[in-house]
Amino acid sequence: MAAISAGPEIERLIQLLARLPGLGPRSARRAALFLIKKREALMAPLAAALATAIDKIEVCRICGNIDTQNPCAICADPRRDASAIVVIADVADLWALERAQALNARYHVLGGTLSPLDGIGPDDLAIDALVKRAHDPAVKEIILALNATVDGQSTAHYITDLLHDAGVKVTRLAHGVPVGGELDYLDEGTLAAAIRSRTPF
Amino acid sequence: MAAISAGPEIERLIQLLARLPGLGPRSARRAALFLIKKREALMAPLAAALATAIDKIEVCRICGNIDTQNPCAICADPRRDASAIVVIADVADLWALERAQALNARYHVLGGTLSPLDGIGPDDLAIDALVKRAHDPAVKEIILALNATVDGQSTAHYITDLLHDAGVKVTRLAHGVPVGGELDYLDEGTLAAAIRSRTPF
Repeated sequence: MAAISAGPEIERLIQLLARLPGLGPRSARRAALFLIKKREALMAPLAAALATAIDKIEVCRICGNIDTQNPCAICADPRRDASAIVVIADVADLWALERAQALNARYHVLGGTLSPLDGIGPDDLAIDALVKRAHDPAVKEIILALNATVDGQSTAHYITDLLHDAGVKVTRLAHGVPVGGELDYLDEGTLAAAIRSRTPF
Repeated sequence: MAAISAGPEIERLIQLLARLPGLGPRSARRAALFLIKKREALMAPLAAALATAIDKIEVCRICGNIDTQNPCAICADPRRDASAIVVIADVADLWALERAQALNARYHVLGGTLSPLDGIGPDDLAIDALVKRAHDPAVKEIILALNATVDGQSTAHYITDLLHDAGVKVTRLAHGVPVGGELDYLDEGTLAAAIRSRTPF
């Protein structure tokens, strides 16, 4: 990115914005100009929201979720079913499941998936903590909600093996046709899985 | 965007990020998570950069550029040719021209283009200030670097008429084939302009 003649402060703002996922150098410049034009309406609130987040956001000591309280609102909620723990790779996956409003369970954030190529082994993930939680007599089911990728599925197998004698049921998300999906756009693996797991109509 | 169960502070951060150009609700969530994970390396510096920008950035009283000094670094630079003023619609255009390093002139930011449909008239733009600057005896040329759109070109015509008796030469950017452009992807208007303005080889 060539230097712009607008002072090092603006240049630094653009460089930091360009590091956000989804923003490249060009859109970071647009975002910086947009912020500068909306100084009162957007730039000041965003600076304040970032400062608040820096101060207040913590990683939940039970499940690894991020929240402004610790334990997080989900772990602290007595209406949440304590007998099922949903294992996800990342907080973004937790948010996606919460948006789907499909379950009322608790979560466990691994912090990634096993990936020998990237040098991510079991010690880099919150797997020990999960095994400990799974041995709680109140816990009856571990739901593995990991990505349907090679790394996600090998992580699921690894965890399943570890939980073999924990006395819990280990389940995983169903594979199949996405709701709204058209068959001729789906890959063979998904179609084969959907046929294998077909259900009575 | 459905509510996420991560506290109102995170939700507010996501909502503010989603208002940036180039970020939608989904990418704003990704950006927020990315910031939270990189609290020390990115979130704190970004909050500080925004706070600095809020404090320091001003609109140049001569040309309308934004900078942390007033007059801006370009207007204050004695090595800049004071005899030519490049008229642009927006600070983003100024940055683009500076990156091209094609000229050493001074600038005048209009703050938009005339647009009857959007209710933008001459009084909404810095046109009076431009006419005043054009009457400075030191100024010999006004270079209109406005978008090659209907609004941009009608703004160029309007300014040309106003500067009729200012004793300055009024020029505009050349139309033609973009460098690296392939002829069969170009629209007819550009091709016709490139043929009309053909140059000896």
